[in-house]
Amino acid sequence: MAIVVVGSVALDTIETPFDRLDDALGGAASYFSLAASLYAPVDLVAVIGDDFPARYLDDLRSRPIDLTGLRSVPGKTFRWGGRYYLDMNTRDTLFTELGVFADFAPDVPASYRQQPILFLANIHPQLQLNVLRQMGNGDGGQRPLRALDTMNLWIETERDALTEVIRQVDVMLIAEEEARQYADTPSLRAAVRHIMSLGPRQVVIKQGSYGALLFSADGSYHAAPAYPLEDVHDPTGAGDSFAGGFLGYLAQRLRNGGELTHGDYHRALIHGNILGSYACEEFSVKRLLTLTPENIATRYAEFVSFTHFEGDWQTNGANGFNGTNSARQTEKQTEA
Amino acid sequence: MAIVVVGSVALDTIETPFDRLDDALGGAASYFSLAASLYAPVDLVAVIGDDFPARYLDDLRSRPIDLTGLRSVPGKTFRWGGRYYLDMNTRDTLFTELGVFADFAPDVPASYRQQPILFLANIHPQLQLNVLRQMGNGDGGQRPLRALDTMNLWIETERDALTEVIRQVDVMLIAEEEARQYADTPSLRAAVRHIMSLGPRQVVIKQGSYGALLFSADGSYHAAPAYPLEDVHDPTGAGDSFAGGFLGYLAQRLRNGGELTHGDYHRALIHGNILGSYACEEFSVKRLLTLTPENIATRYAEFVSFTHFEGDWQTNGANGFNGTNSARQTEKQTEA
Repeated sequence: MAIVVVGSVALDTIETPFDRLDDALGGAASYFSLAASLYAPVDLVAVIGDDFPARYLDDLRSRPIDLTGLRSVPGKTFRWGGRYYLDMNTRDTLFTELGVFADFAPDVPASYRQQPILFLANIHPQLQLNVLRQMGNGDGGQRPLRALDTMNLWIETERDALTEVIRQVDVMLIAEEEARQYADTPSLRAAVRHIMSLGPRQVVIKQGSYGALLFSADGSYHAAPAYPLEDVHDPTGAGDSFAGGFLGYLAQRLRNGGELTHGDYHRALIHGNILGSYACEEFSVKRLLTLTPENIATRYAEFVSFTHFEGDWQTNGANGFNGTNSARQTEKQTEA
Repeated sequence: MAIVVVGSVALDTIETPFDRLDDALGGAASYFSLAASLYAPVDLVAVIGDDFPARYLDDLRSRPIDLTGLRSVPGKTFRWGGRYYLDMNTRDTLFTELGVFADFAPDVPASYRQQPILFLANIHPQLQLNVLRQMGNGDGGQRPLRALDTMNLWIETERDALTEVIRQVDVMLIAEEEARQYADTPSLRAAVRHIMSLGPRQVVIKQGSYGALLFSADGSYHAAPAYPLEDVHDPTGAGDSFAGGFLGYLAQRLRNGGELTHGDYHRALIHGNILGSYACEEFSVKRLLTLTPENIATRYAEFVSFTHFEGDWQTNGANGFNGTNSARQTEKQTEA
């Protein structure tokens, strides 16, 4: 039981005010795979050129990441260059060289097609549709849990295809400003309702250094603040690593059997934040490569300690004010 | 036992894309007092002109807000006008007419000087210093818990005086971007460390629609996401109402005796978010005037339900991954 991911495997050139790295392992599918594989096996669908360094394949193989679906073809690997400003939240794209990615037609290996979770990382919506058609059609016809990430480029240039993808997925992960952009409304809640009206039962709103929100079709809501990093060395891939922690944890829960609960999704949100925060601690995927389950467990415990508080509250009733009893009762109703 | 607040009582003209209100009750001290007085009595120090509508005095008197320190002098009440854009996060100041506020020299009534909590709302730092000199010097010399709010204007124009105020307070509440501005660093944690090095033991970082963070001098940290409002009608005074919920709750805890704990401060952060969210639901202070302890209790229970998650997590140990035990142990250590 593995998570299938389709997306980019790239060579990134990253500049920050303090450092620079050339041709580092990058791409949404790389970050996602290295993060998710700390929880569950990953089946990777992507394309690389014949210039792709063997050591990066070794990096991917150091984890339970199946590379049957990683095609190597003549030509240059997809390259991306970006420069971050001092606040590490804004960046300029210096160059995008599609290389072999320009002609990428994803071919999902037969051994992948019955997996229970599919992640459509941020690539052209037509490629995402292509993969959706191939999944779950092997023999049993089992429908995987389908999750989607996207970006402003596709909202602007491939709106119809993107909408068709959204119609076919269960979970949509999207940055806050892109949700507003897609739904063309300043109200985040209205944007989420619009997306849900198309199909997704869960919408995860990524808020970068502010954390993430989870809206569910039954009206329930969860919020997870971000981990307070001392220093952000390289935010590249934080969103993809978030998706890896989020879906990786859900895969673990699915493997334990049964339906996914609200509690599962809420904890997945925390794991997303954890993996996203670790990804920022070093350049490229370096921190993900050294990350251990114990590291994750430590940060999970920190999340508990800085987000949980006493569930009811006392007052001595001055000003005729005594909210204790009603607070306690309402809380029970909410939890029930 | 009451909270002393010094700050502005104003007449606001507020424009949003949907509505407009002229000469509404506004000012940091008004919002703060109406919010905090749901938890504890408030002693108000401010100035108004002889044009101040009597009905607004009735609004303040409808709560346990002592107006001995509210001086009415000949002239015009402080007026502020602002226009919000569609996203309700950015606004233009249309006008600021200081009126009688230009010559305001706060005079703290003797009956206020031994109160256990002082809130220096966002006014000129020299006025804040003036009030600090008057507090706790009555007879017993008891030092109140001193909390401060400020804004970019004073950071830019009255930096030395502001720094002197910061040196003398226990709790600083400040917007995230203003903390970075004051400390001249893009790193929020570095900014908080700088502020704490001057004196405050607690720094509350207000993040607007993203919630609030609490940093304590002993290194502990708490985060509270914002309440997910369906519609923001008027964000004016949300920060002052946040301060009212935050310090109001702390006053309640102090009244119950003993030292304030981390748990008290964490819950205060939640109450701050609750009052800030309610303040946005209607124009001016209208929602604060109808707010009840039961409303607060309901929203508090909602905060519990959308921020708390299972404190440990299971895995079936695939990939050699089993974080359960270490997570549980670390959690206990963190809570101890």
